Amino acid sequence: MTRPLFQAIGILESCFKEKFGTPRQPMLVPAATARLKIRKEFIPEQSLKGLSEFSHVWLLSYFHLSTNKNFLSTVHPPRLLGKTVGVFASRSPHRPSPIGLSVAKLEKIEGDTLYLTGTDLVDGTPILDVKPYIPSYDALPRAKSGWAGRAKAPKLRVVFAPKSQVPVGLKPLIRQVLSQDLRNPRDKSQLAAGRIHELRLSGCALLYEVRGRLSRVLSVGPAVPKDYAKPGLIPKELLGTI
Amino acid sequence: MTRPLFQAIGILESCFKEKFGTPRQPMLVPAATARLKIRKEFIPEQSLKGLSEFSHVWLLSYFHLSTNKNFLSTVHPPRLLGKTVGVFASRSPHRPSPIGLSVAKLEKIEGDTLYLTGTDLVDGTPILDVKPYIPSYDALPRAKSGWAGRAKAPKLRVVFAPKSQVPVGLKPLIRQVLSQDLRNPRDKSQLAAGRIHELRLSGCALLYEVRGRLSRVLSVGPAVPKDYAKPGLIPKELLGTI
Repeated sequence: MTRPLFQAIGILESCFKEKFGTPRQPMLVPAATARLKIRKEFIPEQSLKGLSEFSHVWLLSYFHLSTNKNFLSTVHPPRLLGKTVGVFASRSPHRPSPIGLSVAKLEKIEGDTLYLTGTDLVDGTPILDVKPYIPSYDALPRAKSGWAGRAKAPKLRVVFAPKSQVPVGLKPLIRQVLSQDLRNPRDKSQLAAGRIHELRLSGCALLYEVRGRLSRVLSVGPAVPKDYAKPGLIPKELLGTI
Repeated sequence: MTRPLFQAIGILESCFKEKFGTPRQPMLVPAATARLKIRKEFIPEQSLKGLSEFSHVWLLSYFHLSTNKNFLSTVHPPRLLGKTVGVFASRSPHRPSPIGLSVAKLEKIEGDTLYLTGTDLVDGTPILDVKPYIPSYDALPRAKSGWAGRAKAPKLRVVFAPKSQVPVGLKPLIRQVLSQDLRNPRDKSQLAAGRIHELRLSGCALLYEVRGRLSRVLSVGPAVPKDYAKPGLIPKELLGTI
């Protein structure tokens, strides 16, 4: 068997259980947690040697939920409220090579598993590569950021209804996630007054509503599993043997 | 035909004509120049819309010259002088998914072509994706950089022999390239006293020698083309139609 061109080195386990609610960029939600177990054929006890000295890593991921059959040359970034930009001027998942690039904080490595925070990836995402973040290569704080620097996403205030019974430990994560407006500005049904949204985070399903600049968490309960993280969504060639 | 998982959006034309002399990280050689023409099936007149407002871009590339058949879990970064680190703690091309990640300065876009500087990629490299560099996502100047922060590559002083006849316009590029020690510290023949090295840059072949911390350019002449950039090295599946 010939070696496949690209291989998943592991499948990410993430607190974000569906696309809705997964942050649109890394580090927006520092309380986000994820784990990456390196597949044993990549000899994690050797291939991870020295990585724990780095504070951050790059995750190169395969956008397995981006199932567009046709190439779209332009995209609608939510914060541009309907305006389009070229796909190569965006970080949209819908690209000729659907590879995600995001930085994550490396909390620790235990054996074959990386413990990460600040991630912006959904549960079940195949990871193609991990690289150390090296500021002298990667950090250009004064780079000019075009439309992304002008169009700031509005922040919402997050409150918990007295009866919502949200466990205290989950509040920072929920607060950080819902301080972004998760609604798609092009989807009128999501913007309708009184609309109640459902969000799956860690093992919970939340119900919440948005009024003006306020997100209000109404209730929390156990989540019913969905199909997003099923292995069937991951192309077999990425799981080939080396 | 099913759409391939990943596609080259273009093939980079670079001033670096072979692996030897290609910088080991981006931005070390600001005078490095490269051009990327986006393939017409990716509708550059639309897919590049808005990109020219960004000062820098990420290039995700396929390491087409990394032809290792077997997975190697550890690598020898040249500046660690023989010590090894895990492949995932390095930016080595030899990885399960041989995808390069490097930032480049976007000088301008003309039609379907990006003009780049500061690149660290060899001529003929297939580019899988271009993404805008967004400092609020990507710039973490205070991240901790492990071994890469401690092991600084030594700088060499570059001089031109009086008879070397190097065109003035090429001097900044040559100076920046040769101020790195390009020799592999594990290759004794490269380190031998009196060894003369050949380097192809843009259309030229240079001869130079290293003595102590001094690089001395001896002569420059027209380059004889080599095989590195031949399309046959690029996997057909990356050049599939969309």
